[in-house]
Amino acid sequence: MRNLMVELADRRYPIAIGQHLFDDHALMTRHIASRQVMIVTNEVVAPLYLAKVSAHYEDRQLEVIILPDGEAFKTMDSAMTVFDRLLQQKFSRTAHLIALGGGVIGDLAGFAAACYQRGIPFVQMPTTLLSQVDSSVGGKTAVNHPLGKNMMGAFYQPKAVIADMTTLSTLNDRELAAGLAEVIKYGLIRDLEFFEWLEAHMEALVARDPEALATAVERSCQNKAMVVALDERETGERATLNLGHTFGHALETGLGYGAVLHGEAVAIGTLLAADLSSRLGYLEVADIDRIRRLLIRANLPTTVPEGLSPEEFLEHMAVDKKNVEGQLRLILLKRIGEAHLPMSVERGLIKQTLVSAIALHRPQGSL
Amino acid sequence: MRNLMVELADRRYPIAIGQHLFDDHALMTRHIASRQVMIVTNEVVAPLYLAKVSAHYEDRQLEVIILPDGEAFKTMDSAMTVFDRLLQQKFSRTAHLIALGGGVIGDLAGFAAACYQRGIPFVQMPTTLLSQVDSSVGGKTAVNHPLGKNMMGAFYQPKAVIADMTTLSTLNDRELAAGLAEVIKYGLIRDLEFFEWLEAHMEALVARDPEALATAVERSCQNKAMVVALDERETGERATLNLGHTFGHALETGLGYGAVLHGEAVAIGTLLAADLSSRLGYLEVADIDRIRRLLIRANLPTTVPEGLSPEEFLEHMAVDKKNVEGQLRLILLKRIGEAHLPMSVERGLIKQTLVSAIALHRPQGSL
Repeated sequence: MRNLMVELADRRYPIAIGQHLFDDHALMTRHIASRQVMIVTNEVVAPLYLAKVSAHYEDRQLEVIILPDGEAFKTMDSAMTVFDRLLQQKFSRTAHLIALGGGVIGDLAGFAAACYQRGIPFVQMPTTLLSQVDSSVGGKTAVNHPLGKNMMGAFYQPKAVIADMTTLSTLNDRELAAGLAEVIKYGLIRDLEFFEWLEAHMEALVARDPEALATAVERSCQNKAMVVALDERETGERATLNLGHTFGHALETGLGYGAVLHGEAVAIGTLLAADLSSRLGYLEVADIDRIRRLLIRANLPTTVPEGLSPEEFLEHMAVDKKNVEGQLRLILLKRIGEAHLPMSVERGLIKQTLVSAIALHRPQGSL
Repeated sequence: MRNLMVELADRRYPIAIGQHLFDDHALMTRHIASRQVMIVTNEVVAPLYLAKVSAHYEDRQLEVIILPDGEAFKTMDSAMTVFDRLLQQKFSRTAHLIALGGGVIGDLAGFAAACYQRGIPFVQMPTTLLSQVDSSVGGKTAVNHPLGKNMMGAFYQPKAVIADMTTLSTLNDRELAAGLAEVIKYGLIRDLEFFEWLEAHMEALVARDPEALATAVERSCQNKAMVVALDERETGERATLNLGHTFGHALETGLGYGAVLHGEAVAIGTLLAADLSSRLGYLEVADIDRIRRLLIRANLPTTVPEGLSPEEFLEHMAVDKKNVEGQLRLILLKRIGEAHLPMSVERGLIKQTLVSAIALHRPQGSL
């Protein structure tokens, strides 16, 4: 088992990364101090891991909420389902909430924990690569709004993160790839050495080599923990974690939650950000190709799906949280391994990137 | 104008108390740094003060939300109304939210500000005595759930509080009295000298003498600011601010939001807490009468309204945030001027207090 600490201004919390952690009773009970425990999970994860996880809490007042799977259910309505049950069962402010699942479950359960009685403790048990390397670390919780992703939320840190790597064996290929998009992101924004390691080990990762995956998860979490420690509330450097996310969120919102996975949207968004970085003179065109090749080897999509015009795309980008009073602000790459802090980018230039990406769909010779 | 500072671990914010503050353009714009401003208010306050307040922001992108009046509308649905509009108007993370109204508006708008894009700045402009002395200070924000008051919320501090005392001239007598219940509470829990001052000046307060009201508001805010500075997240002393509130919230939830005002419920709850304190040997019976007399002079109710059995009352008390795993925990009085930290109280004893209070309704000779 590998252990990391996330160090924040006024608290710290551990991340455990390893095989078969859900079988480790000492670990699974160490951070759950309450008699009242609620597990929030979904229909895909529950048949796989719920029995194993809940076995550790048989002596508690245990409640389980099983939500439908998918980003479309990361809503205030789902949060209300959690609040309803917590209140029906008279759960007090000392009750502990466990998020068992991917990023959607972690974000939703974390937001519910942040709000219930103004905050109850919660533990993240991420079961997807994406949530293990990204959403379970850093304390961003949220639900979606029809007009924008993650628009209602809270900065709220978990008590602990338990990342059982064995869960990655049941992940489908598409979800694995989606996680790799965020892994690659850490290399791109701040860790050239890691990016090069990924170039050398992508086949092992795609083949789910346990040692390679553990290294990728640990290195990603280390990178994220360092950024979050510097800037918990995203006033500066933390925003660089959003490379590709403004484009990505616009795709997710514009195509309807669930049409593309978050990681897939981030992969496409990363390439759009790279294209824009190159138009602004930061990145070599050869670097865009280098990024694209790695994304392709990770089985990630690299072209914008049909269904959004450049204008619609821009419209959805206009509600991004990094924007300031109508000015679009994006994370771009100075080079592979170094991101630029959020910068205002002229709409016309973004549109050039979008038009050239979306033009690929049009049959040659058409308008 | 009197100025107070609330000093917290990692931030501080000012409270301005005085006459005609809503006319003071320098003050009204000092804390509103954004081009995007949203005012959240209600149908009662809007006709009185909205024009005056919004005049200061004519050069901004100004949005106004006017909610129906009352505790029944402090809901997640109302918060969603705020989120919908913020997103429709593409308000960014730098937008400022103004809560113009009483405690309901302050709690709701504060919660919306806490959640929107994980937190945007907001300024409290409390227009009732109760919100000036209590809910605008201390950063507790929340919405109600049908099963419990303030069950979803956040600790989230305003950027500033602007308490224009002239608004008290339009307050109806019942709302004025409700505010006095919280004023009296500060004397009871930690400030005997203030309690004695209130005994000497209650007629002036009820007659809305501006000097007396300003003193009462300032002293109340000072008391609250000191408690909150010591214990922002209510792990200890801050809980004493909830004297009478566990009983009070049960009354509000049990009778349906709006049947009694929050301050009225607190007045009744304070007397029930005093009765229980006396049963536990803390308070003299003469002190209960002394408290009751002051509440009566403030035009507050002192008997439990009909409609709740002792069992139903206890059931509603069971969802209070101070409870720990099914154990009821209450704030009691050691003496006038000193509260006890939250303590577990046996249900049987609480029931005695409730039965004897509720028995008053029964015709003599009946069961």
